[in-house]
Amino acid sequence: MNIGILGTGIVGRSHAAKLSALGHQARCGTRDVARTLAVDKPDAMGNPPFSGWLREHSGIKLVTFAEAAAHGDVVINALHGQAAVEVLKKIASSLDGKILMDITNPLDFSKGMPPSLFVSNTDSLAEQIQRALPGTKVVKTLNTTNALIQVDPHRLAGGDHHAFVSGNGAAAKARVIQYLKEWYGWEKVIDLGDITTARGAEMVLPLWLRLWGALQIPLFNFKIVR
Amino acid sequence: MNIGILGTGIVGRSHAAKLSALGHQARCGTRDVARTLAVDKPDAMGNPPFSGWLREHSGIKLVTFAEAAAHGDVVINALHGQAAVEVLKKIASSLDGKILMDITNPLDFSKGMPPSLFVSNTDSLAEQIQRALPGTKVVKTLNTTNALIQVDPHRLAGGDHHAFVSGNGAAAKARVIQYLKEWYGWEKVIDLGDITTARGAEMVLPLWLRLWGALQIPLFNFKIVR
Repeated sequence: MNIGILGTGIVGRSHAAKLSALGHQARCGTRDVARTLAVDKPDAMGNPPFSGWLREHSGIKLVTFAEAAAHGDVVINALHGQAAVEVLKKIASSLDGKILMDITNPLDFSKGMPPSLFVSNTDSLAEQIQRALPGTKVVKTLNTTNALIQVDPHRLAGGDHHAFVSGNGAAAKARVIQYLKEWYGWEKVIDLGDITTARGAEMVLPLWLRLWGALQIPLFNFKIVR
Repeated sequence: MNIGILGTGIVGRSHAAKLSALGHQARCGTRDVARTLAVDKPDAMGNPPFSGWLREHSGIKLVTFAEAAAHGDVVINALHGQAAVEVLKKIASSLDGKILMDITNPLDFSKGMPPSLFVSNTDSLAEQIQRALPGTKVVKTLNTTNALIQVDPHRLAGGDHHAFVSGNGAAAKARVIQYLKEWYGWEKVIDLGDITTARGAEMVLPLWLRLWGALQIPLFNFKIVR
């Protein structure tokens, strides 16, 4: 399958690497290909430069945002939250009629650490994106756990924990649930409802960040116990 | 132990009944005792009138907010979120030097269902309460699950799921963790950090509410899987 991944951070890389290893045609989209390849120092989070990572993943191509979106039968949004709406609006036509798996979080680092959310409570980033892309089927998912767990839930407790989906299209959500299982091995996915339920999934981030602080490790996830 | 419980809704009743059954002296506080006893119809949530419930729990006394606060060696805040700060300010002197276990959520029902939060993201109800009661040790806890599970975690999965505590005093949090275990049987409690971490615990409510909708039952809780 052709899959476009928007964003070259650790989330985008994790998905691209996994999907490429599965035999899918993964293309990572960035704002400026030459500039992304010219980076030769780790980013603010300590991730190594993209160019070195790309050399180790020869099946993956780095292209522009618009090219990655056009390439994908399905597109994954792994952009920085604060850039997402602006970037996606510019490539809306390439996303028309497609499923956009939205993994981003509306984190606002401008007021210190831990970050707060730049949209929450009565709106969400997923809803902003859906409004910006009325022809696209936006499905919020996987934003509630770490990138390494997103693409390999079985590394924790045999996969016995939950992912969520939020979106307006039942068929699109069903396909995303199928992708989560086929690509990554997610057995437990709860459909929260329409795209407004992404408020709940995004607002769990402040608890997630504090748990990271308390547990001293980001490799955990939520299980809904009944 | 003498325990004051502020609020006569289902959360306050659940705690009072459990604590009284354990042999503690539980007193429920209300704004106007005569008015609470005069109610003869179920409330908006379908809970039966308090007076009938009180007759079935002869060890429990209904008193004013100030009397319940004065009575308690420990006080439990089970007020409606929107009334909490106003009520607590008036009885601050009776709460001085004591632990206040804060179980309330800042739910705003004025904009339709499901409710949004009237404070979130860069502040929390727990912080508002701590600022209103500088002499009290506020510990946020148990607000992330249903009242029936709050007082009996073993009814779900043998208690294999989590409660959280947030507060500025390490000794106060340690005592609350001890109470949670001794009173209710909580084996798994995560200390999130200072009172600002209550933002995370309170902001999980929108996800909680949507999970209730998706699962069609409020009897569930979060387990942090590592």
